[in-house]
Amino acid sequence: MEPQAEKLPRPHVPTLDEILGESFPVLDDGFVRVVDYMGDDAAVVQAARVSYGAGTKKVSDDRGLIRYLLRHRHTTPFEMCSLKLHIRVPMDAWRQWIRHRTASVNETSTRYSVAIDAAQRTAPDQWRIQAVNNKQGSDGAIDEDLGTKLTAEEADLQDRIRTVYNGRLEQGVAREQARKDLPLCTYTEAYWKMDLHNLLHFLSLRMDSHAQKEIRDYATVIGREIVARWVPAVWEAFEDYRFGATHFSRLETDVLAAMGAGDMDHAMAMAREIGWLKESKKGGWLRHRERQEFEEKLQALNMRAPWQD
Amino acid sequence: MEPQAEKLPRPHVPTLDEILGESFPVLDDGFVRVVDYMGDDAAVVQAARVSYGAGTKKVSDDRGLIRYLLRHRHTTPFEMCSLKLHIRVPMDAWRQWIRHRTASVNETSTRYSVAIDAAQRTAPDQWRIQAVNNKQGSDGAIDEDLGTKLTAEEADLQDRIRTVYNGRLEQGVAREQARKDLPLCTYTEAYWKMDLHNLLHFLSLRMDSHAQKEIRDYATVIGREIVARWVPAVWEAFEDYRFGATHFSRLETDVLAAMGAGDMDHAMAMAREIGWLKESKKGGWLRHRERQEFEEKLQALNMRAPWQD
Amino acid sequence: MEPQAEKLPRPHVPTLDEILGESFPVLDDGFVRVVDYMGDDAAVVQAARVSYGAGTKKVSDDRGLIRYLLRHRHTTPFEMCSLKLHIRVPMDAWRQWIRHRTASVNETSTRYSVAIDAAQRTAPDQWRIQAVNNKQGSDGAIDEDLGTKLTAEEADLQDRIRTVYNGRLEQGVAREQARKDLPLCTYTEAYWKMDLHNLLHFLSLRMDSHAQKEIRDYATVIGREIVARWVPAVWEAFEDYRFGATHFSRLETDVLAAMGAGDMDHAMAMAREIGWLKESKKGGWLRHRERQEFEEKLQALNMRAPWQD
Amino acid sequence: MEPQAEKLPRPHVPTLDEILGESFPVLDDGFVRVVDYMGDDAAVVQAARVSYGAGTKKVSDDRGLIRYLLRHRHTTPFEMCSLKLHIRVPMDAWRQWIRHRTASVNETSTRYSVAIDAAQRTAPDQWRIQAVNNKQGSDGAIDEDLGTKLTAEEADLQDRIRTVYNGRLEQGVAREQARKDLPLCTYTEAYWKMDLHNLLHFLSLRMDSHAQKEIRDYATVIGREIVARWVPAVWEAFEDYRFGATHFSRLETDVLAAMGAGDMDHAMAMAREIGWLKESKKGGWLRHRERQEFEEKLQALNMRAPWQD
Repeated sequence: MEPQAEKLPRPHVPTLDEILGESFPVLDDGFVRVVDYMGDDAAVVQAARVSYGAGTKKVSDDRGLIRYLLRHRHTTPFEMCSLKLHIRVPMDAWRQWIRHRTASVNETSTRYSVAIDAAQRTAPDQWRIQAVNNKQGSDGAIDEDLGTKLTAEEADLQDRIRTVYNGRLEQGVAREQARKDLPLCTYTEAYWKMDLHNLLHFLSLRMDSHAQKEIRDYATVIGREIVARWVPAVWEAFEDYRFGATHFSRLETDVLAAMGAGDMDHAMAMAREIGWLKESKKGGWLRHRERQEFEEKLQALNMRAPWQD
Repeated sequence: MEPQAEKLPRPHVPTLDEILGESFPVLDDGFVRVVDYMGDDAAVVQAARVSYGAGTKKVSDDRGLIRYLLRHRHTTPFEMCSLKLHIRVPMDAWRQWIRHRTASVNETSTRYSVAIDAAQRTAPDQWRIQAVNNKQGSDGAIDEDLGTKLTAEEADLQDRIRTVYNGRLEQGVAREQARKDLPLCTYTEAYWKMDLHNLLHFLSLRMDSHAQKEIRDYATVIGREIVARWVPAVWEAFEDYRFGATHFSRLETDVLAAMGAGDMDHAMAMAREIGWLKESKKGGWLRHRERQEFEEKLQALNMRAPWQD
Repeated sequence: MEPQAEKLPRPHVPTLDEILGESFPVLDDGFVRVVDYMGDDAAVVQAARVSYGAGTKKVSDDRGLIRYLLRHRHTTPFEMCSLKLHIRVPMDAWRQWIRHRTASVNETSTRYSVAIDAAQRTAPDQWRIQAVNNKQGSDGAIDEDLGTKLTAEEADLQDRIRTVYNGRLEQGVAREQARKDLPLCTYTEAYWKMDLHNLLHFLSLRMDSHAQKEIRDYATVIGREIVARWVPAVWEAFEDYRFGATHFSRLETDVLAAMGAGDMDHAMAMAREIGWLKESKKGGWLRHRERQEFEEKLQALNMRAPWQD
Repeated sequence: MEPQAEKLPRPHVPTLDEILGESFPVLDDGFVRVVDYMGDDAAVVQAARVSYGAGTKKVSDDRGLIRYLLRHRHTTPFEMCSLKLHIRVPMDAWRQWIRHRTASVNETSTRYSVAIDAAQRTAPDQWRIQAVNNKQGSDGAIDEDLGTKLTAEEADLQDRIRTVYNGRLEQGVAREQARKDLPLCTYTEAYWKMDLHNLLHFLSLRMDSHAQKEIRDYATVIGREIVARWVPAVWEAFEDYRFGATHFSRLETDVLAAMGAGDMDHAMAMAREIGWLKESKKGGWLRHRERQEFEEKLQALNMRAPWQD
């Protein structure tokens, strides 16, 4: 069968082509590099226009349409773009990474091959203190004297583990079993491919301040160095709508509307009804996580709830 | 191998068990019924606690934890619950429904069987007017005299189509081909199974006022009649955080913060820099979609932007 | 951060670039055209080598490795390639198409836009007879005199339906509702993107002789005209291993092994034990679907089971 | 809205209910236990019948229909059942497990909580030798004297690692960082939920003799102890069609058919054309992986290719 002629140039992005295959270093021995990609800002617009047809004419330009799509969570057009990376990453960061199920992945096998002879080493000034008010986080750096000791201890431990691993291989133990005591921070490599919609979701979670520093370093490089070059209009909209955005629940919206109307009594009454305002025996209000989060959002907006006065 | 004893009762929800298998009617000839389910509010909590372990002790109770999870978009625990429905729905609503790819589906085949002998009929007072400012929506009801004519015309057309379909089958045409001119609103039936996380996403889109009325009717029954009975704490949190919530982008948050600080000049300057405030030749500001959406959100909060004065 | 230099050329496939954007006609008014793609035969090999590392050196060449991967169902390397098509297809074929959930899709909306003014028309010699022994299939062509009548009747019906649709729009009925009586075979358009692994699965089901002719026509064009040009080594392996392959169950394998050993008594005994050989009252064996399928496979191999003698 | 009455009992499986919540031990300190499930053999049949309707009446019974579905890869009805497990597993086996992307997962977080104080220990008779002809496998047991040494060395190493981990925590290092040198075989726990179709795929890969012993032990318990109790008809069909099945490619089928017809010259000619028969300088044929796999399959069927004579 002969196709009918209406030839189309293949979409490509010169600013991304420039860095194709180049490694962005991350951590002490990791990297991220772009292997291939599909689509660009215009591919998102093209897909949106087939769905929404004439209805999109009112949106004056492509940038405006992309912002509209992202703001209103019309996500399917962003799936039309894909990015394929080659990464080198410690296995404990990879454990978090691989939880994103919409990716295509091929990882180096330590059954087929000897494990990469590198584990992530922590420098004396990089040991982090356990956060107290955030059970899953860290908070500030360990004293450097202690850090120096921890680093030396780690180097010694990793060397010892590697010696055991190599010894097992020499004595004929199967690779798939010999590896079992390697440290979680042993480096691995993978090809990783994801569409832009799911990539933005990955970045919104992994560039977030609650993400662990190691994976956040990777996500930040992917976002700022790669996606920003690849689809600049999408990236700009993403930064506006996903980062630094503020969300109020229905209850919060109702309280805020009463405050906006100047009806502080009504605002107080609603807060009381929701259960936010229970008096503590010592005076003041009992701690309430939702109320506290609301107060923090108000503070960022230079506002105060009536019960704070 | 013999399992070790720590027997567990299977989770079940008496309020949902009561309606298992019963049909909730939707539209003129459709229905939704629960066939089976897995999990309950407690299953969400159980899954969250294995992930976050001791860290969740601070959250005083299950309801509080569920609200926390939903507010902070910790979505995986909600996947631990699943719902399986039997539905009867016009194919044009089903076309929208099936776009949700995370479902498991078995639909009646009109290749194997004769098509269901029912198409959705529109009553005289149910014809809707094309919305002007919303290209994809409808707005108010058609005049009932005209509606009566349209309904009669539809009945006549659907009868004619069915006659042609039946005629083809009698003359030996293959079912898979005979069906090709059946109307899009022909009823079909399906078993449809989805986990709770994806179901909430489905409901947030399909119960929304922008969804087409037909699928909105189904989604509303699923949400209000079924999910509310099944996982009441999840449903309450969902209604608070997904419906009636207000979102401000980073730019909007910045303008709002300046307004909160009483610095209207700064708020104006930022709005100008973003491109929101371009003067029209006739006086006033040129239309700008993002500014207009911001103003609408402010209005709902009984606030006004400085440029509106 | 500055990337380290190891520049990489972006993979491209000249034989596919040649037909980029050109339409392959399908049915009376449909088409398929390639909009974009990612990867090539070498991308599959590259991904496999990172996973299997040094272990793959034994496989002498890329073609051999691709064949090995496909034969042993190592599927992830095939996900590294993606294809993006623009298609025009009747909605009833699209209904089957959209069931493949791993695709990214943007379809023309008949809520936003007036429906495409074309429904698939069946030529007099294209009406198919309902198959008797295959409830879901068709078998041979309807007599052409009858076909001529059916075609005329269809044209008349489709015109009538279109008139009603247009009338509704003129009278102000919302597009989303006016469309409800359009025929299932109304044409629609979509962008459709899928990775190569899932595309091969789609093709193995939809190019199969059990697939409905309409979607089979599309799948055949995608496979033979597009995928064959894009990833020729993958396509060759796919045709070998997925089409024309023969599968024997464990039970069938056991019976076959007894036949291979010349021990027909044992083969008979096993078949009897499985329940394949129950004597009918009229003599001969009672129908048994699994036995019959086994006999058909043997016949294709020019072999006979002992009970057939 | 009041539902219409046609009450339905909730499907349940007494043989599975009996072991709900009980732990099946795996490896030295792991387990698998069923937390919940949805559906049974009948749910598969129910879903198939809605799809294939009257067409399935010919299949006399449920067991026959299930076998038919599995044989012909009609996979969607199997998605109607789901299984939810609680597992305790070494992280290196979990790394393989988590690659199955269709699961819902909640895993213990070693950011929130202190890591489980257990790593898998290898007994002196359990150390496996690296396979020579299978780069990714193991083959036989290490000499027990050496095994005893390896086991002692491992115990010592794991104790040392744990001491370092505990020391870091005591000195205030964040849990998310302190864990980085824990061994890959540290135990973790998770809730893991999957539908039956994808579970069968998981089992076909992980019960296979090529799977690593550790995950194979888990898969075998899940298959033989749990799925066999839960959906016995599905399990029987699965064992028949997926395990011990034999597959011939199109090329192999063609050669086999020539052999079946007794036309050995034609079989030889085809094999030659495919490239299977290249003479080595020392006499005999050059190694060819595809030919060799064909010969192995023939051998299992007590057959020989003509070139083997």
